[in-house]
Amino acid sequence: MTDFEKQISFILELDKIKKITRQTYLSDGSRKENDAEHSWHLALMAFVLADYANEPIDVLKTMKMVLLHDVIEIDAGDTYAYDTEGNKTKRERELKAADRIFGLLPEKQKAEYRALWDEFEAMETAEAKFANMLDKVQPLLLNDASGGKSWEEHGVKKAQVLARNERTHEGSETLWSYAQSLIEKNAQKGKLQ
Amino acid sequence: MTDFEKQISFILELDKIKKITRQTYLSDGSRKENDAEHSWHLALMAFVLADYANEPIDVLKTMKMVLLHDVIEIDAGDTYAYDTEGNKTKRERELKAADRIFGLLPEKQKAEYRALWDEFEAMETAEAKFANMLDKVQPLLLNDASGGKSWEEHGVKKAQVLARNERTHEGSETLWSYAQSLIEKNAQKGKLQ
Repeated sequence: MTDFEKQISFILELDKIKKITRQTYLSDGSRKENDAEHSWHLALMAFVLADYANEPIDVLKTMKMVLLHDVIEIDAGDTYAYDTEGNKTKRERELKAADRIFGLLPEKQKAEYRALWDEFEAMETAEAKFANMLDKVQPLLLNDASGGKSWEEHGVKKAQVLARNERTHEGSETLWSYAQSLIEKNAQKGKLQ
Repeated sequence: MTDFEKQISFILELDKIKKITRQTYLSDGSRKENDAEHSWHLALMAFVLADYANEPIDVLKTMKMVLLHDVIEIDAGDTYAYDTEGNKTKRERELKAADRIFGLLPEKQKAEYRALWDEFEAMETAEAKFANMLDKVQPLLLNDASGGKSWEEHGVKKAQVLARNERTHEGSETLWSYAQSLIEKNAQKGKLQ
């Protein structure tokens, strides 16, 4: 296979994330969104909201990171945030998926994109903190807009959402402050237990 | 409204492009894709395939361009490439949509993103040529992968595809050469009339 053929096979393989359904509903509550839609939304937010990052970020790098962060779910599936059992095996399943999926690419891109995915997961750099913050805040925006539909469906507790968002403030204090107001509002409305 | 509130309302408004269905099927032919999925795919292709641009491109700018290029369809709808009647009123409908949708943003971003959209439409810069090329080649990849399903459904002719792709080579000779091989293959198979 030429490098070009490898790149095309990677691009076509990634088409599959359009079929990986998340638990978050679209803002109008009509259906759940999928990983491609979610990733598109994060990439949009990355450049629209970049100025609110706690530390200056490389926007291009952050966008690549969020566009790729869920591709491992092609093999590993989407593990719902509040699925305790699923989260026990998540890491192992995702590492195996990363090996296979980034392995479709030519050496140089395989190394670059795998490093971006590892960086996202490690959550140590400014870009990874901002990207992880977006990954947490985007579903909060949609959950609020859809009237807490997914939270009600799963009986999610306010304390669970807060625990899951323990490090969200590291990406952006501004966004985290806004996210907290949404959590509070939905707790008061009884959408979050 | 504060700038932050305007940005959040823009981000939530754009959630609607997840509901705008295109005529292209997913690679497995199971259903048609929507604008958010399509835009995610273009942004991915923009950085994976950037080296094949005829002229060097600013990858970040190109990615913003493709992530935003279809948001006007929230108001204007998706006009199928081979819908002659719809294409007569397309430009007017889309300009009006651009005014309203980018108008949700704070002044500076409104100007920046509107300029990116205008630049995409004008197809004069290296980035706009590459982005337009991606916008044409991505559905070719999916149409080929899904066995020409959308082409057969609409009775599309090879000559129509070639006419629509008259300027695709301006973005990347490499991608256009590959696209031509897909068109030829599907014409021989009878998937394109």
